[in-house]
Amino acid sequence: MAEPPQVADGPQVADGRVRAVIDALYPAVDGGRFPAKALAGESVQVEAHCFADGHDRLRTVLRWGRLGSGALEPEELEMTSQGNDVWRAAFTPPSPGRYRFTAVSWVDHFESWRAELERRVELEDVRLALEVGARLVEDTARRATGSDRAALEAWSLQLARQARSQDPAIDAEVLKALALDEARTRIARRHADRRLRVERSLELIADRPRAGFSAWYELFPRSAASEPGRHGTFKDVAARLPYVAGMGFDVLYLPPIQPIGHLNRKGANNALRAAPGDVGSPWAIGSAEGGHCSIHPALGTLEDFRELIGHARDLGLEIALDLAFQCAPDHPYVREHPGWFRHRPDGSVQYAENPPKKYQDIYPFDFECADWRGLWAELERVVEFWIAQGVRIFRVDNPHTKPFAFWEWLLGRIRDSHPDVLFLAEAFTRPKPMQRLAKLGFTQSYTYFTWRNTKRELTEYFTELEHGPARCFFRPNVWPNTPDILHETLQGGHRATFAARLVLAATLSTNYGIYGPTFELMESTPREPGSEEYRDSEKYQLRHWTLDRPDSLRSLITRMNRIRREQRALRSAGTLEFVTTDNEQIIAYLKRDPPSGEMVLTIVNLDPIDTQSAWIELDLARLEIDAERPYQAHDLISEQRFEWRGARNFVRLDPQRMPAHVLRLRRFRRSEHDFDYYQ
Amino acid sequence: MAEPPQVADGPQVADGRVRAVIDALYPAVDGGRFPAKALAGESVQVEAHCFADGHDRLRTVLRWGRLGSGALEPEELEMTSQGNDVWRAAFTPPSPGRYRFTAVSWVDHFESWRAELERRVELEDVRLALEVGARLVEDTARRATGSDRAALEAWSLQLARQARSQDPAIDAEVLKALALDEARTRIARRHADRRLRVERSLELIADRPRAGFSAWYELFPRSAASEPGRHGTFKDVAARLPYVAGMGFDVLYLPPIQPIGHLNRKGANNALRAAPGDVGSPWAIGSAEGGHCSIHPALGTLEDFRELIGHARDLGLEIALDLAFQCAPDHPYVREHPGWFRHRPDGSVQYAENPPKKYQDIYPFDFECADWRGLWAELERVVEFWIAQGVRIFRVDNPHTKPFAFWEWLLGRIRDSHPDVLFLAEAFTRPKPMQRLAKLGFTQSYTYFTWRNTKRELTEYFTELEHGPARCFFRPNVWPNTPDILHETLQGGHRATFAARLVLAATLSTNYGIYGPTFELMESTPREPGSEEYRDSEKYQLRHWTLDRPDSLRSLITRMNRIRREQRALRSAGTLEFVTTDNEQIIAYLKRDPPSGEMVLTIVNLDPIDTQSAWIELDLARLEIDAERPYQAHDLISEQRFEWRGARNFVRLDPQRMPAHVLRLRRFRRSEHDFDYYQ
Repeated sequence: MAEPPQVADGPQVADGRVRAVIDALYPAVDGGRFPAKALAGESVQVEAHCFADGHDRLRTVLRWGRLGSGALEPEELEMTSQGNDVWRAAFTPPSPGRYRFTAVSWVDHFESWRAELERRVELEDVRLALEVGARLVEDTARRATGSDRAALEAWSLQLARQARSQDPAIDAEVLKALALDEARTRIARRHADRRLRVERSLELIADRPRAGFSAWYELFPRSAASEPGRHGTFKDVAARLPYVAGMGFDVLYLPPIQPIGHLNRKGANNALRAAPGDVGSPWAIGSAEGGHCSIHPALGTLEDFRELIGHARDLGLEIALDLAFQCAPDHPYVREHPGWFRHRPDGSVQYAENPPKKYQDIYPFDFECADWRGLWAELERVVEFWIAQGVRIFRVDNPHTKPFAFWEWLLGRIRDSHPDVLFLAEAFTRPKPMQRLAKLGFTQSYTYFTWRNTKRELTEYFTELEHGPARCFFRPNVWPNTPDILHETLQGGHRATFAARLVLAATLSTNYGIYGPTFELMESTPREPGSEEYRDSEKYQLRHWTLDRPDSLRSLITRMNRIRREQRALRSAGTLEFVTTDNEQIIAYLKRDPPSGEMVLTIVNLDPIDTQSAWIELDLARLEIDAERPYQAHDLISEQRFEWRGARNFVRLDPQRMPAHVLRLRRFRRSEHDFDYYQ
Repeated sequence: MAEPPQVADGPQVADGRVRAVIDALYPAVDGGRFPAKALAGESVQVEAHCFADGHDRLRTVLRWGRLGSGALEPEELEMTSQGNDVWRAAFTPPSPGRYRFTAVSWVDHFESWRAELERRVELEDVRLALEVGARLVEDTARRATGSDRAALEAWSLQLARQARSQDPAIDAEVLKALALDEARTRIARRHADRRLRVERSLELIADRPRAGFSAWYELFPRSAASEPGRHGTFKDVAARLPYVAGMGFDVLYLPPIQPIGHLNRKGANNALRAAPGDVGSPWAIGSAEGGHCSIHPALGTLEDFRELIGHARDLGLEIALDLAFQCAPDHPYVREHPGWFRHRPDGSVQYAENPPKKYQDIYPFDFECADWRGLWAELERVVEFWIAQGVRIFRVDNPHTKPFAFWEWLLGRIRDSHPDVLFLAEAFTRPKPMQRLAKLGFTQSYTYFTWRNTKRELTEYFTELEHGPARCFFRPNVWPNTPDILHETLQGGHRATFAARLVLAATLSTNYGIYGPTFELMESTPREPGSEEYRDSEKYQLRHWTLDRPDSLRSLITRMNRIRREQRALRSAGTLEFVTTDNEQIIAYLKRDPPSGEMVLTIVNLDPIDTQSAWIELDLARLEIDAERPYQAHDLISEQRFEWRGARNFVRLDPQRMPAHVLRLRRFRRSEHDFDYYQ
């Protein structure tokens, strides 16, 4: 006959007798082009569409195991049919790393035989079915060994004998009971005929738990000095750690700590020329004092930095470092590797430009250079260097201005040797490049949250993040402010706006961060009207902050971080649902923890001036709240407890006091001892 | 350095300097696992997400060409950026066949240079840019030949000279005009540097136009005799052709025409035993008189059949044949190829079963048999045999009970040698197997239309078919009735129900069919209450029909088929939108032909008893209808013309007269000669 079928659903499909198909294996990113993301220790729901022609029964199993170093022996579990050809199973990756999961499906003649037998009525039909079964079990026995084999051989003989028995007591029901015997069926299932199976595999990255739940605090080390005017050091940052840890953060992110270029250095407020004594932008990396693997001398030594990491660890804080792959004009690379930069017709190095804007203090790498391999290898060495100092989290500056292929390679290599290292992508760009970076391996991603302020904007954006296709690969990390973004809503200077944005960030997303102390001290002055830059930005000058100002948001921040840690409903992504309110200024949303049934309802007044009120409408049936009994709405910010009844309840939020409720909802339950209590 | 990056977006990505990425190439089915479907002669919109790191400009082209026999030299056209990293281009496959389309994208330094130059202001910057440009154009010239090369070399020299000119008349604007010169830019674009390109390819099947637009009529040849009691022949069918063609159908589908088995033959109304003289089911194929490549002697000869095809063609009708891959117990295969069937413990062949139901007149093939290759080859031979007789359309019986891999192989092979052959999948099964059959190559598919009767059911189902992911591969062919399905709504026997279902089928889908003459004669009696089978079904006995009954729906059918042919809006899929009405019994939907702007609004009263009325609400702005002027709603069924105004208009449909409007909407236009008319 002609050529064999060109069908590729699995390794064995050159055999035309393979009748099962597997479709839509999930979680998948771009049909397997990229791995989906999961968390070590958290269950991964795997789904596949499995079916075959005709009425025969399938069996489907899920095989999963860790790849690369620390590979585990693959485990296998049964997938169960959910109806409509959907099959599901769940597995929990025990540790960070790369995993492969494989759905394996086949037309199972033993299961088909059982299913048909159950529906047979006539004795003659049942007898014939038992004879068929005797042969099937005999075949199955041949694949078994030891006691399984013996049990199956005995069963087969018994089936054949009973099928032919003339004893009138042996009626159809007796025969069916023997053939459908559960204990022996379990043995037979262990030795199914899988020769005509089909397989579909996907990879998945399991990150450590902090990838999925983190609270970040960003500060400029050089502004951490205890007295004004002095350049802060790592020792000053160490002294600041109890303040940061005390607020409940778990990641302390530092802008670049490398030597800062002197050539074309920018002055205060981004002035084109630095004045004498100006400290320059930390993102203009490199000078005669060193490059990407050096420490800015004014901050201290490498030893000091390692000590800082240790102190932070003792307080439950991780230090996240900035990875800014670009150079100041006096960076050693410029001299040592001129080929890594693009040159202008006059022979000078091409600085960063976005005509008519010029960034003469920054030389970008030329990733199209002939020595791209050398460049990639060096940048990998930089990352490995900081990992060797104890850094396990990197915030990557503008990853969207370096090639996607480079990141995919770099992050893949680092992941293989250090599966506990996390990367946050600082790409504020168009949606598709941002998603690509997340797909190719960034652990977390900055978002548009800063620019999503109305109820409608927030609802649409977080619905997309939490329930759109990106949920398999894009982990949002939301920030109300950054050193580059003082959004105009914050420029109003209202305490209520800062408080509302904090509550939104901390509850809408499992990962969030603030740039402090500007945030808790409510810095609100832009460089000039219409600008999103801070006036007297720390990016270009030293600042000194009075942390114990009585109006600081420190205590609210502390409380929000505690609420986040204590409420399981706020700790995992994927359950966010917006709740109907009848006021455009009042946004409300619910998060749940399905295993425990816990629920947190956050309600925020987006108006920083006026008291707003609204009716909040809950779908009680879906929340398994008894519509006939009261339930408790416990505000975890104010510690007030409200007794609610029915689907619609009234709230009123005065922004001058507190613009938000974070309500733990507790159902009414009657205990064994006949006391009422809330659970 | 370490291993090269494991990135696979195209053949060249082993080179880490490739910065462009292509994502989401469309139309795609399961990420390219299956080809999407298109129609020869109709434009295919191709879309891709293309972007790169940083601010450089991309260029993206679409290459497309026919594969296999009759392959065409690939053509190339520019894709254009739509914003948000979406790029589009369209091509029109000229003939049926398999095509490949490829998006090719690269970071284009010439385009980036132009874009930056446009934004430059300072003379010094422009001069420097011209020097860069001179080098870029010089490089470009090296890739060109002939006059292009000469033109580019001259341009390069001119750019370099002007860049250095000290003539004060040569200011920034003069230099920019020279550098942005359109004619020379066009030449340069022909010789772009594509070395660092990325490519993504997909395949697509273009079918002949009938695949996308067809009206089917099914009849049993044996019931076509002019006088009662006689077994109809192909000659009788030939005499019936003017009747079918006269109603405007273009496909005449015949149930199997092969010899019918005698062994275990079913009797009238599916009786287990046939009475003497019972004609049996045509789907029980094969007897001593022949098998799948033979003609039932009672119908005539192969010669007669070929003549029938010719007569039909003369009247614009194609004959569609049934492909039922199963055997009667006395089919020659059973004797010649016992290995193609499964055997029971007693040595008998396993008949079709769905316990406790038994179909002893049918032996299914065992597609898991050792000789599966022989079986596949023989079934391919059967198809080729009928193609050799002139058949170009097959209606495939129960494809979901044969392996998917088999169909993918068979349909692929037939398509390669006969790209004009169409296959309709008669799979009334679960959604995922039905979709799989469409993906793997069936041209058209039966649907759940028969069981979708309420406004909500119809709206949801057709929205899914027309706008869901299946739109790339699943072509619905909707039938109000089939020999197997007399839906309970038709059992009411109301003429209005038949008329409404006809109008719905003919306008909701570009492909539809009826099983006649039962349909136009409104046969409505089920075999027994609760059954969807016809009483005295033609499946098991001869029937004789009085075609010229005065109550026949023949004239309405004729009109509907004419309306379908004349209205471009009804001829292509993809524009269906449901229209708001304030009555659950009144369904309304609009179809448009974007090139001509033509619109057809169909309104159906689903209540067969009572007159129903409704306000119909149109989005006039979207339809480009002037809200201030009247527009015309011309009922193509009744030929009434209504003058409508504004978004809301009233309709009233008396089912005893006609339960539907099919309204051509015509906008009001003022002509050059100052007459008003409708267009």
